[in-house]
Amino acid sequence: MSSMIIVMKKDATSEDVDHVVERLSSIGCESHVSVGQRRTIVGAIGDRESIQQIPWEAMPGVDRAVPVLKPFKFVSRDFQDEDTVIEVRGVPIGDSSQFIAIAGPCAVESREQLFRTAEAVKKAGARVLRGDAFKPRTSPYSFQGLKEEGLQLLAEAREEFDLPFVAEVLDPRDVELVASYADILRVGTRNMANFTLLQEVGRQPKPVQLKRGFTATIEEWLNAAEYIYKEGNHQVILVERGIRTFETASRNTLDITAVPILKGLSHLPVIVDPSHSGGKRELVVPLARAAVGAGADGIMVDVHPTPDTAKVDGEQALLPSEFGDLMNSVRRLAAAVDRSV
Amino acid sequence: MSSMIIVMKKDATSEDVDHVVERLSSIGCESHVSVGQRRTIVGAIGDRESIQQIPWEAMPGVDRAVPVLKPFKFVSRDFQDEDTVIEVRGVPIGDSSQFIAIAGPCAVESREQLFRTAEAVKKAGARVLRGDAFKPRTSPYSFQGLKEEGLQLLAEAREEFDLPFVAEVLDPRDVELVASYADILRVGTRNMANFTLLQEVGRQPKPVQLKRGFTATIEEWLNAAEYIYKEGNHQVILVERGIRTFETASRNTLDITAVPILKGLSHLPVIVDPSHSGGKRELVVPLARAAVGAGADGIMVDVHPTPDTAKVDGEQALLPSEFGDLMNSVRRLAAAVDRSV
Amino acid sequence: MSSMIIVMKKDATSEDVDHVVERLSSIGCESHVSVGQRRTIVGAIGDRESIQQIPWEAMPGVDRAVPVLKPFKFVSRDFQDEDTVIEVRGVPIGDSSQFIAIAGPCAVESREQLFRTAEAVKKAGARVLRGDAFKPRTSPYSFQGLKEEGLQLLAEAREEFDLPFVAEVLDPRDVELVASYADILRVGTRNMANFTLLQEVGRQPKPVQLKRGFTATIEEWLNAAEYIYKEGNHQVILVERGIRTFETASRNTLDITAVPILKGLSHLPVIVDPSHSGGKRELVVPLARAAVGAGADGIMVDVHPTPDTAKVDGEQALLPSEFGDLMNSVRRLAAAVDRSV
Amino acid sequence: MSSMIIVMKKDATSEDVDHVVERLSSIGCESHVSVGQRRTIVGAIGDRESIQQIPWEAMPGVDRAVPVLKPFKFVSRDFQDEDTVIEVRGVPIGDSSQFIAIAGPCAVESREQLFRTAEAVKKAGARVLRGDAFKPRTSPYSFQGLKEEGLQLLAEAREEFDLPFVAEVLDPRDVELVASYADILRVGTRNMANFTLLQEVGRQPKPVQLKRGFTATIEEWLNAAEYIYKEGNHQVILVERGIRTFETASRNTLDITAVPILKGLSHLPVIVDPSHSGGKRELVVPLARAAVGAGADGIMVDVHPTPDTAKVDGEQALLPSEFGDLMNSVRRLAAAVDRSV
Repeated sequence: MSSMIIVMKKDATSEDVDHVVERLSSIGCESHVSVGQRRTIVGAIGDRESIQQIPWEAMPGVDRAVPVLKPFKFVSRDFQDEDTVIEVRGVPIGDSSQFIAIAGPCAVESREQLFRTAEAVKKAGARVLRGDAFKPRTSPYSFQGLKEEGLQLLAEAREEFDLPFVAEVLDPRDVELVASYADILRVGTRNMANFTLLQEVGRQPKPVQLKRGFTATIEEWLNAAEYIYKEGNHQVILVERGIRTFETASRNTLDITAVPILKGLSHLPVIVDPSHSGGKRELVVPLARAAVGAGADGIMVDVHPTPDTAKVDGEQALLPSEFGDLMNSVRRLAAAVDRSV
Repeated sequence: MSSMIIVMKKDATSEDVDHVVERLSSIGCESHVSVGQRRTIVGAIGDRESIQQIPWEAMPGVDRAVPVLKPFKFVSRDFQDEDTVIEVRGVPIGDSSQFIAIAGPCAVESREQLFRTAEAVKKAGARVLRGDAFKPRTSPYSFQGLKEEGLQLLAEAREEFDLPFVAEVLDPRDVELVASYADILRVGTRNMANFTLLQEVGRQPKPVQLKRGFTATIEEWLNAAEYIYKEGNHQVILVERGIRTFETASRNTLDITAVPILKGLSHLPVIVDPSHSGGKRELVVPLARAAVGAGADGIMVDVHPTPDTAKVDGEQALLPSEFGDLMNSVRRLAAAVDRSV
Repeated sequence: MSSMIIVMKKDATSEDVDHVVERLSSIGCESHVSVGQRRTIVGAIGDRESIQQIPWEAMPGVDRAVPVLKPFKFVSRDFQDEDTVIEVRGVPIGDSSQFIAIAGPCAVESREQLFRTAEAVKKAGARVLRGDAFKPRTSPYSFQGLKEEGLQLLAEAREEFDLPFVAEVLDPRDVELVASYADILRVGTRNMANFTLLQEVGRQPKPVQLKRGFTATIEEWLNAAEYIYKEGNHQVILVERGIRTFETASRNTLDITAVPILKGLSHLPVIVDPSHSGGKRELVVPLARAAVGAGADGIMVDVHPTPDTAKVDGEQALLPSEFGDLMNSVRRLAAAVDRSV
Repeated sequence: MSSMIIVMKKDATSEDVDHVVERLSSIGCESHVSVGQRRTIVGAIGDRESIQQIPWEAMPGVDRAVPVLKPFKFVSRDFQDEDTVIEVRGVPIGDSSQFIAIAGPCAVESREQLFRTAEAVKKAGARVLRGDAFKPRTSPYSFQGLKEEGLQLLAEAREEFDLPFVAEVLDPRDVELVASYADILRVGTRNMANFTLLQEVGRQPKPVQLKRGFTATIEEWLNAAEYIYKEGNHQVILVERGIRTFETASRNTLDITAVPILKGLSHLPVIVDPSHSGGKRELVVPLARAAVGAGADGIMVDVHPTPDTAKVDGEQALLPSEFGDLMNSVRRLAAAVDRSV
């Protein structure tokens, strides 16, 4: 049956229709032509990838080409029905009976800052530590991260507090380095469509958190996940972190609807980041709780011992004590949806 | 202190600055001029409304005018610190210990359709009935509602099932009519900035649900609420129903972050509409649950006995049995945030 | 041929397909079923309006319904191939050999303000005067217009300077009043989806400027035009005035691409408003010139003798002398696309 | 004078204010405190970069921090008043008396395709050839470019037709390779915030075209340009190519307003891409003409000898003959704004 429906223009000629049919034939596909009073429609039958490569709308007489099937394959529920569960040092991400909290500083700034935070989040119930050593910054004059020194501190914190950690990688040249330290690599929102980076993280063995580009559609996001999957790395974790809209009262607009949509379209785990989406401390708790209700597999939260000296995104960091309150609240809600924290 | 900060251009002259100062003086306001190496800044001190009327950025030498205070007043937490609770036939909307479900058909189509739905939602725990008699439709060829006959049916259902009801009003000429039947009037998303309609509903005694324009900022929304409040009607209920973004996987993007933001800025009750925001049946339950987590005071849900014959928005209507499941789920979550349904 | 293509879900049953086929049959339409290996597709053949009313996506087993034809009819190029040209007191709007400038104050504030402006814009080459007597304002504390007194002043200016005028109408109750004075009525951006207002202006004999809702798609805009047209008023002028996006450097984002798209889809005249879209005086001239290049039929420009005392939108108003410069520049560009000003 | 204005909350304590003042003092900056009846405001006086690093809004009692100055420096008109003109093999980009056309295939597919196109665009008046050897593709199943072979073909075409060429670079590891062939490097829309790539192109000697991220604000775009500039490469060309909005009738929404805004904020050349913004062949000519009117320094246009066999973006490619017509039209319009093509 059709992989693509090609709607001809009102004034398309029979030559135009023949042209489309011949083109399909030339790539080994069949066509089903439906001639009507006002428009002719051609159904393209055959290999999805071949058909989607052709610029149908560039052909004379073609009005629109409507894909019937999604462009991604491996990351789709059509391909794999059961949920992917990713085990990281014993922590199962994507298991529908659990709700995983990932927490830590946005950027690693010092041993003291990192260790104080790690100790607190562990105590409050976080299962994975976050902390970045490479930071993408809008302004070239902003702090760019401690680089390898930061990764070393994270590795030490892992041992000290028995917490696997996730860290961002910005550059394909750094993938090997980051993968040699981190338990999970993160591709950040600005790099979701950095395809050479996606390919590199797809070729190494560690799980990858793929943040949604703040301007990416869900379909583009799943295509980006497909890039990683296709290279052989099947451990992809999707992180919703807000999209850019006209609203300026919050830093971004958390697309909470993306959670159930992704759960329908894909088998991959879905995490919500309530810190970067809202961009303000007082929004973190309500957004984290909304994530539980929406069916996410977990949250990722910025915590900092002294947010007003933070080098990155202090406005949104919770104090350790606030994170403890958040976990208490999340725990109750998670129980109400049959998940343990 | 300053109600407005006026930043002069780099090359503004002293005459430009004097002009600003004189203009402030002419409306009875004071100014505080801060001369720097690169820019001069004027703080405008005095009555907020007077200062916000002036087109500062139209003046020679002015780069930007930054308001320090919000443009709305009565609907702000600054004006009233305690939550507004609106009682409708004994149902308290905005009470932080309760979570209110409003449910019913998108449009009233017939007595049977309405009564079957009303009976089911009442039984499942809804406290208010929804059902519209006037429908705004994008296409002039679509069903526009039963008009007064629909209101009569709603009034009968109210008596039969002991459920107050909310109904939309589209036209200032219909306000009196709708108010003579309904317990709560609704101003829909397309009319949020229909200022003459806002004024009319502000001059009648029934509570008003004000849906967010799907393209309105939170600040514009609160300004619209201010229009109603200022006319003397203090019973305004805010309904978040999704905003328009680039994402096409859902009909709109539910701005769940708006819930805690509104709770911070305003004292008015906040309801979430998970039906119109997502636009698809399978999204309603997760979005309703997210609303509980985010701190909303309730939800408003489309229910229809036979969605695939619905004249409006059948794609998003729950079956009565599905609504029952939703209520069971919402009840558990609400308990986890100390609210009863 | 098909008016709608209904794509079934992967796991749709043959009962689901039968259900769709029966539903089509029940509204007097035929169906064409194409069964494939992975999906079944049903083409719905018959009356467009009937088919588009059905909530196909609410039916069991239906994945998506893709309309083949646009929902609007009379305003479409399919319905009328030649351009609509609207004559207003001898001024032809929509004539591809002319480029029409409409100019005047955003709001009428006083006889002196209006007459000084009208005299200047007439001298510079404007063919139509603008000036509003009813103003929709985001804040209830802002100036709302001179109402009927403003219309009287506009009528006097028309006689004095031999300029037909356009004025906004906000409320269905005021349509008769505004139509008794103005040569062209305007439905503003906030009222583009105020369907009862659209119907009222569709039932009176004066031409109507229909501004694009700043959040409306082009398809919704043409549907709104269809509302007016369907009531019997065929004199509709489309005004592009910018859409709401994430960019905050300009008030709105002028969608210049809408001009050629509208020219392809519809036969109605298209005017560009460079004042309200940019929201800043220095942007008006470049945007007006871009409108010429894009193929618009004219521009509508705010002019004010003393912008920094303007009661509405002074930031974007040109001085009369600046408007003269604009017209000189536009005249040269229009000549380069074979239009006279 | 102030680089940042810090507005305290209504209920901020004097300790909160002292804290802000001490923090400023600790980074060598001064403060100006203005105490009002309802709010206190602190003006931060001193080094812009130092002040903008601090997370002011994370501090207790702080409501908002409003920057007075832009975060970018070298690319700003404040830093350099005269226009930057970039000479590429004798072609001056950014010269206000000229309008430069850049044209060629989206992707290099073969010698014949490239040479046929290059010959045609040269003849029609293009001054620079475009053609990519590395293509970022949304789907991993799409054609990714000929890589070095493509660059070799471009270099041969340059000699054959005496046309400098621009080519995209996707990966920091390829910068040296691309720079060894191309006359201008391009950073594409998906990589505008790929900061390590920006730094690499900033460290090599060839001019760089920086496309706007389709979701980037103008301020973020200029920050990205600052990244390149700060590394020592002052030859940055800005390319507006449309932004993502809710409108789906065109691929993206060309932000024509960005042209005059950039010309006000920055001294860098501004080029418009009418092909990728509209995404449809019939939109290219009107958008190119709008670019002339808006004051752009040139256009970049996709041309292909057989668009319906194009491997990338055939929908938007002009035929060589259509490009000739476009140039004739652009030449007339450019003359009307005193530019030669």
